Amino acid sequence: MPQTLPPDSVGLVTPQTLHVDTPLTLACARVLESYDLVYETYGVLNADRSNALLICHALSGHHHAAGYHSPDDSKPGWWDTCIGPGKAIDTNRFFVVALNNLGGCHGSTGPSSINPATGKNYGPDFPLVTVKDWVQVQARLSDHLGIDCWAAIVGGSLGGMQVMQWAVDYPERLKNAVIIASAPKLSAQNIAFNEVARQAILSDPDFHGGHYYEHDTYPKRGLILARMVGHITYLSDDAMKQKFGRDLKTGQFAFGYDVEFQVESYLRYQGEAFSRYFDANTYLLMTKALDYFDPARDYNDNLRAALARATCRFLVISFTTDWRFAPSRSQEIVNALIAERKDVSYADIDAPQGHDSFLFPIPRYITLLKNFLNRIPEANHAS
Amino acid sequence: MPQTLPPDSVGLVTPQTLHVDTPLTLACARVLESYDLVYETYGVLNADRSNALLICHALSGHHHAAGYHSPDDSKPGWWDTCIGPGKAIDTNRFFVVALNNLGGCHGSTGPSSINPATGKNYGPDFPLVTVKDWVQVQARLSDHLGIDCWAAIVGGSLGGMQVMQWAVDYPERLKNAVIIASAPKLSAQNIAFNEVARQAILSDPDFHGGHYYEHDTYPKRGLILARMVGHITYLSDDAMKQKFGRDLKTGQFAFGYDVEFQVESYLRYQGEAFSRYFDANTYLLMTKALDYFDPARDYNDNLRAALARATCRFLVISFTTDWRFAPSRSQEIVNALIAERKDVSYADIDAPQGHDSFLFPIPRYITLLKNFLNRIPEANHAS
Repeated sequence: MPQTLPPDSVGLVTPQTLHVDTPLTLACARVLESYDLVYETYGVLNADRSNALLICHALSGHHHAAGYHSPDDSKPGWWDTCIGPGKAIDTNRFFVVALNNLGGCHGSTGPSSINPATGKNYGPDFPLVTVKDWVQVQARLSDHLGIDCWAAIVGGSLGGMQVMQWAVDYPERLKNAVIIASAPKLSAQNIAFNEVARQAILSDPDFHGGHYYEHDTYPKRGLILARMVGHITYLSDDAMKQKFGRDLKTGQFAFGYDVEFQVESYLRYQGEAFSRYFDANTYLLMTKALDYFDPARDYNDNLRAALARATCRFLVISFTTDWRFAPSRSQEIVNALIAERKDVSYADIDAPQGHDSFLFPIPRYITLLKNFLNRIPEANHAS
Repeated sequence: MPQTLPPDSVGLVTPQTLHVDTPLTLACARVLESYDLVYETYGVLNADRSNALLICHALSGHHHAAGYHSPDDSKPGWWDTCIGPGKAIDTNRFFVVALNNLGGCHGSTGPSSINPATGKNYGPDFPLVTVKDWVQVQARLSDHLGIDCWAAIVGGSLGGMQVMQWAVDYPERLKNAVIIASAPKLSAQNIAFNEVARQAILSDPDFHGGHYYEHDTYPKRGLILARMVGHITYLSDDAMKQKFGRDLKTGQFAFGYDVEFQVESYLRYQGEAFSRYFDANTYLLMTKALDYFDPARDYNDNLRAALARATCRFLVISFTTDWRFAPSRSQEIVNALIAERKDVSYADIDAPQGHDSFLFPIPRYITLLKNFLNRIPEANHAS
């Protein structure tokens, strides 16, 4: 945490845990008898509970979206650029809720949690959960918080998919949907990259069929590779060029397999860091949730028919250099919404950072998001 | 081999081996005292030795470019679609030479060969070779064959880089250069993908620091992953969509980590097959040769200055959906050649197959290549 807290920070925050004992039937037909959900809130819920805004996280995200857990934290939450007093997601106006999804590895029940039935970590016995399951769970969290209808639900990438699923499954429970850098379903190429990441983890001898907890190890090599390949798809070719070019680590070719180019050093470092804090089984589960997401599947593969159920306003945002979920994928969503005469705004933001753009403070993007959210009338009555 | 050989096949071919005892000083400053080169030839060298055409292979290629080694072969050489009597590279007109590059794993000396100094496989002690080294070696093969000047040198991808290096290093020894789906140097993103592939191999416990031959094993898991990630970059998003879409292996979600989508099955199968016949140390070496390639580096990072040395005619070809070496990368070569007032033709071929297009019988591409080569006057005098 910086010595002097900036005035637009939500400051110190404390995660909360909701324990749910109502059994949950998942898309895979398995039942989870009970589970924990970890979440944070920023801002104040108004008297008529109309200013609540839900943040849905992406593959490696979690409930800690803004502020600091301790004065010793070097970094704030993952979306601190957007969440705070006066920021795009203005905590002076909104009561913001961010949770760690079921199956995660940051406090909510997931593969690394202890299975009460066995007293051991779930590991590979944890059921695969889908975006639809997550939205069902998020609806339970809404009930617990007494929020009948969200002023807005916002998410980027896999988070945007949850927003879409909300609009389809619980149309009466959200007024505004913000879908950033997302897609109506993965392409074969998207699935292929996920499959490489999974195979890297599954084929690591330290994976032990997912029971690595019991062997006091984890598939470090596999996780590093998975993150490296993922990372490449988050950055644009241009962003990589600007950031690294063909700069050499030492200025000279070493003619060996140690790091030669800066980009190699960066990817290895990031992969290594990621492998130390992210659970491999959760990584597998998150990539599967991405692969399975396809809200049109329940509507005869007709995206229009799925989105026809929605009643909220939509803001859809894409980024010009995003090749993981290209602007054309966002436009599939927009076109289906327009065809169904929904209230939709769309912007393709010129930004060099690729898929990662949604996490960057790009002025046009931030202003757009801020203006859209500030036009939500209910949020004027914060208590 | 088909029961009846098509009239445009070069038929049964026998590889030849050239043993070179003249020490070779490599770009890394190490010296190789002796080495073998495996090559094949198709067609007949004419009396004035003016109809010779050299084929340079890409990452996983080799000397067996056309025809069959045995009547039992199910498939012909890797570029049989282009090489044969009456084909684009017409063996009625040209004496075609294809070799396995130094460091390869198909017969030419490489990491899997026995090091005469130790009696063991070279393994990681085999020096890293560069495109410049390969071209030097190819020039020695030319001397052996009595070919002072090639009518044409042709290559795709990494092969195209060798063609470029020939035009810079031995301008007087080639009349025509055909550079297909290539680039003047790798981008940071290209290097990043290569690095993921290398880390997959290097971190495989069965790699044994490159000495896996002595452990009677090989880094199968690493090679599979390396090939999978490579394979994704060879195909376009569109090609994957057309080939697999989101088709399920069984028609139903299985909610597990076995193969779910067809694209996963395809990638795993291809990766597995590749791992059985390709040497991991050679794979590492080839990706490094790609990373290091940068002919402008010897000319103050000025590509124009490098290509200014060239005296041959150029044909440069790219493919619209190639995102590994995008058309813009070919255009960098073309622009430098135009600026230096070289004789260059360029075509960007509309094809859905991505980088792999250069291996496909795409009519406009094949016709273009054929017409360019057929206009080479020397080749009219085949003996």
